[in-house]
Amino acid sequence: MIIILKENPNKSQLASLIAWLRDKGIQVHISEGTSRIILGLVGDTSALDIDLLSALDIVDSVKRVQEPYKNANRKFHPNDTVIPVGNTQIGGGTLTLMAGPCSVENEEQIIAVAKAVKAAGATLLRGGAFKPRTSPYSFQGLGEDGLRLLLLAKKETGLPIVTEIMDVSQLPLFDDVDIIQVGTRNMQNYNLLKVLGEQEKPVMIKRGMSSTYEEWLMSAEYVMAGGNRNVILCERGIRTFETYTRNTLDLSAIPVLRRLTHLPIIVDPSHAAGDASLVAPLASAAVAGGADGLLVEVHNDPEHALSDGKQSLRPEAFGRLAKNLISLHQFMKTLEERT
Amino acid sequence: MIIILKENPNKSQLASLIAWLRDKGIQVHISEGTSRIILGLVGDTSALDIDLLSALDIVDSVKRVQEPYKNANRKFHPNDTVIPVGNTQIGGGTLTLMAGPCSVENEEQIIAVAKAVKAAGATLLRGGAFKPRTSPYSFQGLGEDGLRLLLLAKKETGLPIVTEIMDVSQLPLFDDVDIIQVGTRNMQNYNLLKVLGEQEKPVMIKRGMSSTYEEWLMSAEYVMAGGNRNVILCERGIRTFETYTRNTLDLSAIPVLRRLTHLPIIVDPSHAAGDASLVAPLASAAVAGGADGLLVEVHNDPEHALSDGKQSLRPEAFGRLAKNLISLHQFMKTLEERT
Amino acid sequence: MIIILKENPNKSQLASLIAWLRDKGIQVHISEGTSRIILGLVGDTSALDIDLLSALDIVDSVKRVQEPYKNANRKFHPNDTVIPVGNTQIGGGTLTLMAGPCSVENEEQIIAVAKAVKAAGATLLRGGAFKPRTSPYSFQGLGEDGLRLLLLAKKETGLPIVTEIMDVSQLPLFDDVDIIQVGTRNMQNYNLLKVLGEQEKPVMIKRGMSSTYEEWLMSAEYVMAGGNRNVILCERGIRTFETYTRNTLDLSAIPVLRRLTHLPIIVDPSHAAGDASLVAPLASAAVAGGADGLLVEVHNDPEHALSDGKQSLRPEAFGRLAKNLISLHQFMKTLEERT
Amino acid sequence: MIIILKENPNKSQLASLIAWLRDKGIQVHISEGTSRIILGLVGDTSALDIDLLSALDIVDSVKRVQEPYKNANRKFHPNDTVIPVGNTQIGGGTLTLMAGPCSVENEEQIIAVAKAVKAAGATLLRGGAFKPRTSPYSFQGLGEDGLRLLLLAKKETGLPIVTEIMDVSQLPLFDDVDIIQVGTRNMQNYNLLKVLGEQEKPVMIKRGMSSTYEEWLMSAEYVMAGGNRNVILCERGIRTFETYTRNTLDLSAIPVLRRLTHLPIIVDPSHAAGDASLVAPLASAAVAGGADGLLVEVHNDPEHALSDGKQSLRPEAFGRLAKNLISLHQFMKTLEERT
Repeated sequence: MIIILKENPNKSQLASLIAWLRDKGIQVHISEGTSRIILGLVGDTSALDIDLLSALDIVDSVKRVQEPYKNANRKFHPNDTVIPVGNTQIGGGTLTLMAGPCSVENEEQIIAVAKAVKAAGATLLRGGAFKPRTSPYSFQGLGEDGLRLLLLAKKETGLPIVTEIMDVSQLPLFDDVDIIQVGTRNMQNYNLLKVLGEQEKPVMIKRGMSSTYEEWLMSAEYVMAGGNRNVILCERGIRTFETYTRNTLDLSAIPVLRRLTHLPIIVDPSHAAGDASLVAPLASAAVAGGADGLLVEVHNDPEHALSDGKQSLRPEAFGRLAKNLISLHQFMKTLEERT
Repeated sequence: MIIILKENPNKSQLASLIAWLRDKGIQVHISEGTSRIILGLVGDTSALDIDLLSALDIVDSVKRVQEPYKNANRKFHPNDTVIPVGNTQIGGGTLTLMAGPCSVENEEQIIAVAKAVKAAGATLLRGGAFKPRTSPYSFQGLGEDGLRLLLLAKKETGLPIVTEIMDVSQLPLFDDVDIIQVGTRNMQNYNLLKVLGEQEKPVMIKRGMSSTYEEWLMSAEYVMAGGNRNVILCERGIRTFETYTRNTLDLSAIPVLRRLTHLPIIVDPSHAAGDASLVAPLASAAVAGGADGLLVEVHNDPEHALSDGKQSLRPEAFGRLAKNLISLHQFMKTLEERT
Repeated sequence: MIIILKENPNKSQLASLIAWLRDKGIQVHISEGTSRIILGLVGDTSALDIDLLSALDIVDSVKRVQEPYKNANRKFHPNDTVIPVGNTQIGGGTLTLMAGPCSVENEEQIIAVAKAVKAAGATLLRGGAFKPRTSPYSFQGLGEDGLRLLLLAKKETGLPIVTEIMDVSQLPLFDDVDIIQVGTRNMQNYNLLKVLGEQEKPVMIKRGMSSTYEEWLMSAEYVMAGGNRNVILCERGIRTFETYTRNTLDLSAIPVLRRLTHLPIIVDPSHAAGDASLVAPLASAAVAGGADGLLVEVHNDPEHALSDGKQSLRPEAFGRLAKNLISLHQFMKTLEERT
Repeated sequence: MIIILKENPNKSQLASLIAWLRDKGIQVHISEGTSRIILGLVGDTSALDIDLLSALDIVDSVKRVQEPYKNANRKFHPNDTVIPVGNTQIGGGTLTLMAGPCSVENEEQIIAVAKAVKAAGATLLRGGAFKPRTSPYSFQGLGEDGLRLLLLAKKETGLPIVTEIMDVSQLPLFDDVDIIQVGTRNMQNYNLLKVLGEQEKPVMIKRGMSSTYEEWLMSAEYVMAGGNRNVILCERGIRTFETYTRNTLDLSAIPVLRRLTHLPIIVDPSHAAGDASLVAPLASAAVAGGADGLLVEVHNDPEHALSDGKQSLRPEAFGRLAKNLISLHQFMKTLEERT
C-alpha cells in the first residue's frame, strides 16, 4: 500500500500515523520527493481501512498495490477452484448450464421444465422460491412451498438445484438445496454472507447492480473468510444509462475475474438483457469469452401466453441453444490448444 | 397503466391477456390506432407486475400513469408527514440536525461528541454501532457495546439517537433507539424492511447506491405497507463515473421527492462527498434546496490525528456550520413567504 | 407516438396542441380514460420534437412507438447493408479485421505493421493521424504527415485504410482514405456528420462515451439523411462506475443493433478494455455474439518497450488471434445453419 | 507523478523507461520496496501521456500527484478570475444571471423576453441560434438569422449576450456576441477549443454529459493554452441511471472546482432538471452552494401553449426567482463574513 501525503504535512500527525502503522506490525518506507512524501507500507495491509487512511488530514491519497482479498485471490491460490455438485462439477473446464423458470409456480410447471431442461442438456435446475420484488404488492414467490416443489423436481430428474436465499432465517430450509444463490440486492448483506461462510454448501454470489469487481470479490471474501471455499461468481449485468436492455451485461468481467481470482464464473444473460431474443447471442459470447457456465431462464406453458416471459426461452429454444453452446465450448478448447 | 402492444399481436394471446386483467378487477379500454393497439387499464394497478407485463410476447412496452406506491404517495396523503422524536420533530418546517461520529469508539468519545453537538445545536445524535464494511477484515463496529454507549450518551445529553441496523436479528437491541437507520446496502433487503414495518419506531431509509427515486419510495412502501408510517428518506449520493467525490450528491432528489411523497427528506453531505471541506457548501445547498434536515459526521479527538477523518467535521466547525444553517433555514422561510 | 396528458388538462391548451399537430399533417386519435386523456398520433412523427412535446404544461409524458430514425431503420430496409471497400466488403456475412497502431509514428513503423497485419489476415489497416487527446500538451498525432504515411502503407500492401477525422476542415486530406472514422467525442458533432453525409466515402461512427443506442443511430441518421448510405457502427465501450477496465464493452449492442438497423457493426475491444490481455477473449465474444468485424490495435517495435502499449497486441499475438477469430467465425456459421 | 511497477519488471525495459524520462528533463527517484519498485517523477510532467505510461508492459499503474492543467489551476493562479462583460462582470463575488429562451424564434419573442428578463434583474441575455439536435429532422435553430435577432435584442436592452457555437466555421458571425458558449456535446471538440483559444472573447464551456471534473478542466486548458484566459465553466448535469430528471445536477462541482480552479462557475438548473418546477429549488441550492451565477431558461408567449416548455420559466416566475436569488446571494455573504 502506498500513501501519498499532502504537501507540507503536519509533522506530529505524520509521526503519529507512522507510529500507528508500525504498531500494527507494518513496515513503513518513507520516500521524500522534492514536494511530496510517500509512504510505502509492507506487511499484511488487508486489515487496514483504506477509507480511514484516505480521510486523514495529512493524506492526499492511498493506493493499494496488493488486492484486499486473500482467499479469493488467484495470486495465493493459482489453481482454478472446482466445485463438485451432484454428479457434475462447476469450473475446471466444464460448461455448467443452470436452467429453469424465474419463479416456481406449481408442481406441474416445475416438473415439466425440469424434465425438459435435463433432456436439453442442463446440468442444474434453477428456480425461485423466495423472490425479491421491488413492490410489496407483487407476488413474493411460493416461499417454503416453492422450495419443496424444487426438491421434488430434483428427486424426479436427479438434477441438483440452485435457488436464492433472502434472509438468514431461511437457511434451515436450504438443507437439500445444492447451491445457495445470493441475489444482486443482497451482495453486500454482510450478515447473510457471514452466516453462509459458516456452512459448507456452495454459494453463488450475483454481482450487485452497481458493484465493482473488487467489491464483488470482497463479498466472496466474506464467505470464504468464514471457511466456506465453495464460492461461485455470477455476472448478471450492471446498471447504466442505457435503458434498451434491462441491465448492461459486462462480459469483460470474465477475463478480468479469471486473472484476479480462481473462483468459477457464471453468466446470466436472461436477467441482464431482459429479452429472450438476446439470450442466444449473449450466451454464445459468454462461452466464447471463457465463462464456466450460464444461468438461463426457461419456461414451458406455451398455452398460457401470460407467463411466457419475454426473457424466458421455451424448452425447444433452450434445447437448440444448449446444443450450440456445448458445441461452441468444445470448439473453443480446440482453439486454445492450437494457440 | 397503459400497455402498448406490438404490431399484429397474436389474437388469442391478446384475448387471454385482457381476460386475465379483467379477472383481477381491472377495466381495460382498447384503443386501436392504424398500426398499434393500446390498452388503457383503470383500477388498482399497484399489484400488477410491470416486469411481467412488459415481458409478454405481444407487448411492446408498458407505461405507468399512476405511481406504484400508495402509502408513500403525496397524491393520497397531501399533508407533510411530521415525525415526533424525543422533544423534537422531523419535518413540518423544522430543520433537523443529526450529528455525531461515523463509528462509536469508546465512552469518552461518544459522550464528548454528544455534548459538543448538542451545544452546537444538533437535535439528534448519530453514531454507528453495527458498521457495514466492504472488507471482512476491517473493524465491524462495537456492535452491542456501541449501542450501549450510544444510549449512555442519550441519557447524558437528552439527545434522541439514530443508528443503523444491519440484520433482523439485531432488532431487540434497538428498543431505546429513537430512529432506526437502514443503510444504502440494505435499501432493498426486503425481509428487513418488512420486519421494520411491523414495529412502530421511525425508520430512516438511505438511498441505495444506484437506486432510482421510485425504487427508493417502493422501499419506503415496504415499511409502510406493514403499518409503520414513520418513514424518513435520506439522500446520500449515488454512484456515478466521477471519482473525485466518493458519491455524487443528487440534490434534485429534494424537490422531486417533495412532489412525489409526503415523507421528510434528510441529506447526508458527509458520506456523499467523503471530504469535510465539501460538507459546509453542500449542507447549505441542501437547506436552500428545501431539505428537512441534515446528517453530518462530527468527530472530536483532535489529539489523535488518525481518527480525525477527512469527512468528519470537528465540533467547532460543526458549531459554526449549524449556526449558519439554522440562520439560512430561517432566511429561506422569509423568501418563501415573500413569493 | 403516444402523448399521455396530465390530469384535467387546460382545455384551450389541449385544443391548441391538437390543432398544431393536425397542421403538421398528423392524425390525432383522442382516447379518454377515467382519469387521463391519451393522444395517439399517426403519420410521420419523425420531425416532431419529443423534448418539446414532453415539456408542455399539459403533457405528462410522450412515448414513441416508432423509432425516430428512418434511413438507418431495419423496418424500412430489411436487408443488411453491405459496404464494398477495396477488394473486400463490410457486412453480409464477412468478418472484417481492421488492425494497426493507435498512432502513426513514422514510415518504418506503419509499413512494418501494415505488412504484418496483412500477413496475419487483416482486411483493413487502421492508424491515427489526427488524435483527440484530453490534454493540449500531449502529442496530437502526425496530422497531414500521418495521413501521407498511411497512404504509403496502403500502396505498399494494398490494404484499404480507416482513420479518424476531427474537423470538417480536414476532409480534403481524406480523398484516398477508404473509411472515415468519427470518434467517440465527435459522435454528436452534428456539423461534421452533416458534411460527411454530403460525400460518398464510408463513415464509421464510434459510439459516444455515454450515448444510448438510439442517439447513436440518430447520428448515423444525420449522415444518411444527407445521402450517404455507407455507415458503419463501432461499439467501443461505455463509461460506467467500473474503473478496472477503461470502458465497459457493451456486447448487447450487437444483437440489439442487428434488430434495429441494417448497418454493419464493428467492435473495438482494444479501446474498450485498455488492456491487451483482455483483447482476445473480448474479440472472441464479439465474433460469437455476431459482430461483423473488429478493430484491433497492433503495434510492432518490440525493441522500444516504451511504445508497446498495454492495449496493443504485437503482430505475432494478432496473427494467432486473427487465425482463431476467422476459424470461430466459420464455426458460428455452421451453428446457425444447424439451428 | 508516481509510477508503480509490476512485480519483477524486465530490467532492460525499466532502464529504457528511465532513460526516456530523463531525456525529457524529468528527474526519476527510484524507491525499491520488498516486492515493488516505485518511480517518483519530479519536473514538468504535464506533457507526459498518462495513458501511454499506464499501458507499458512493466507498469502496474500511474498516479498523478500534480494536476495536468496549469493555466486553469488555482495553485498557480490563486486569485479568482473575474471576467468583465458589458457593464457587468462574471466572478469576483457577483451573481450573474443569464436568462432567455432556449431557441430564438422571432424578433417579437426575443425582444419581449430580453426586456422582461432585464427588468427582472438578469445581467445577460441567453438564446440559441445554432441548436444541436439529436435528430436531423428537428428544427436546427434560426442560425445566422437567430444571431442577428439576438444582437437586435442586445441593442434594444443593453444586455450582453451569450450563445452557442457549433462549428469553427461559424466564428466570424460571433463578432458582437459577448460570451461564446461551447455546448455539452462539443466539450471535447478539441479543434473548436483551440480556435477559441486563439481569440479573446470569453468562452463558457458546458460540462460534457459524462465528463469528469478533470476532463472538463482540461478542455478549459485547451482554450487557455492558446492564450485566452477568459473561460467560464457551466455545470449542467451529468448522465446517470436516474431518468426522472433529464440529467443529474452535480452541485458538488461548485466547491470542488472552487478548490481546483480560479475560473468562475455557472450552474444551469433548467437543462439539468428538464422541469420548470425544479428550477427554483435547484437555483437556490446552487447560490447557497457558492455558484457565481445561473443560466436559466425563460420564455414568454403565454398564449401559445406549445412553446411554453416545461423547463422554461415565464417572465413573472423568473422575476420572483431572481429577486429571491439576489437576496439569498446577499444573505450568504453575511454568513461567510460571520464564519
